Amino acid sequence: MRNRFDEQLEVLNVELIEMGVLCEEVIAKAAKAFLEHDNEAAKYAISKDLEIDQKEKDIEALCLKLLLQQQPVAKDLRQISSALKMITDMERIGDQASDIAEISTMMRSKSFKKVEPIEKMSTATIKMVTESIDAFVKKDLQLAKDVIDYDDVVDDLFDEVRNELIDFIRQESENAEYYVDLLMIAKYFERLGDHATNIAEWVVFSITGVHKDLDGLHNSSTSDYLTKLLDQRKKE
Amino acid sequence: MRNRFDEQLEVLNVELIEMGVLCEEVIAKAAKAFLEHDNEAAKYAISKDLEIDQKEKDIEALCLKLLLQQQPVAKDLRQISSALKMITDMERIGDQASDIAEISTMMRSKSFKKVEPIEKMSTATIKMVTESIDAFVKKDLQLAKDVIDYDDVVDDLFDEVRNELIDFIRQESENAEYYVDLLMIAKYFERLGDHATNIAEWVVFSITGVHKDLDGLHNSSTSDYLTKLLDQRKKE
Repeated sequence: MRNRFDEQLEVLNVELIEMGVLCEEVIAKAAKAFLEHDNEAAKYAISKDLEIDQKEKDIEALCLKLLLQQQPVAKDLRQISSALKMITDMERIGDQASDIAEISTMMRSKSFKKVEPIEKMSTATIKMVTESIDAFVKKDLQLAKDVIDYDDVVDDLFDEVRNELIDFIRQESENAEYYVDLLMIAKYFERLGDHATNIAEWVVFSITGVHKDLDGLHNSSTSDYLTKLLDQRKKE
Repeated sequence: MRNRFDEQLEVLNVELIEMGVLCEEVIAKAAKAFLEHDNEAAKYAISKDLEIDQKEKDIEALCLKLLLQQQPVAKDLRQISSALKMITDMERIGDQASDIAEISTMMRSKSFKKVEPIEKMSTATIKMVTESIDAFVKKDLQLAKDVIDYDDVVDDLFDEVRNELIDFIRQESENAEYYVDLLMIAKYFERLGDHATNIAEWVVFSITGVHKDLDGLHNSSTSDYLTKLLDQRKKE
């Protein structure tokens, strides 16, 4: 029984890695779509989003199966409930990258000023997603914490983009529309960073049992609750 | 057993209504915060967001308890899994309203041109959230579908805001920063509309067993899977 469970946890890990790879790909393609005005890359990003949606359903089904059939406790339970939370953020990563791709296809490809910090944002968010999944798989607490800290870099880059774009708009107000679209894209990247941070916070929770947002709240966190409930049932 | 279960489903409904009311309140306060430059309203919105976070945990624990203890099937199972999905969107509504409130406190209160469609966006999103929860509680399919259709109104309003703001920026490029902040706020309202739409889509699923995003996918939706799994266990 126990070995079968470990095997299934391993399958869960592999599925999460695959979903993580899809997320990295979708961000990379979305970035390419708008940086190089590449409509093929945009289409590819949008199609990857559908794959990510399907992957979410598959992993969700697997997690629920593990919860119901195996009724895991403590660390195993935390790992599965973290996985359930992480895939929600990964699914949103797909949505947002797909939105970036869509906006890109509607932007005119005429050459405007380059906004370098947006390029940096795309690189930074890909790094964050990759490392948050790595941290989960390797149970690497420090790496998860690094991802969380790194979100400040993305937030600072967004502020840079925002200020740079406001300057550009003042200088060439006739191109305001283009720069406003760029700002929206930067905002999507900022949110991609937030989602990677959320993933990393669930990794911290799966390893330590402590979640930032659950601190200071009453003892009603789902996992606490489930742990108690299932422990009780095992005793009965 | 069955009556006890019905009672617990009733508790779930009441909790969802309460969370829905919190969502309406947080949007209303966030709208007040920025429309009237009201910092008290902003603080209130931010504090409501924490209440919403706590509510999410409570409802999630209740849903998981119902799933594990009662192992519901078919319609009941769909109702609980829809509730689990809905609260994720409601929690994001709290986050985004709180972000609107935060941006508002940092905006200068000097009077600029009014952007009427943003006011309409706030009214429209409150309506959508209220009605999506109503639809869930009353199992009103038509109302849920109305909410989904109404998202086009919010999207059109966003386009209006965007175009209006681009004009304003061109006319008074010295105030670009202010208008860019307004654009961000409008974007948050647009996302509030998306979340209300997601809620309504889960309502449709809980009533009909059909979800827009699950159409055309293989038979691997969580709920299908769970239904099969639990039916099988009942037979054993």
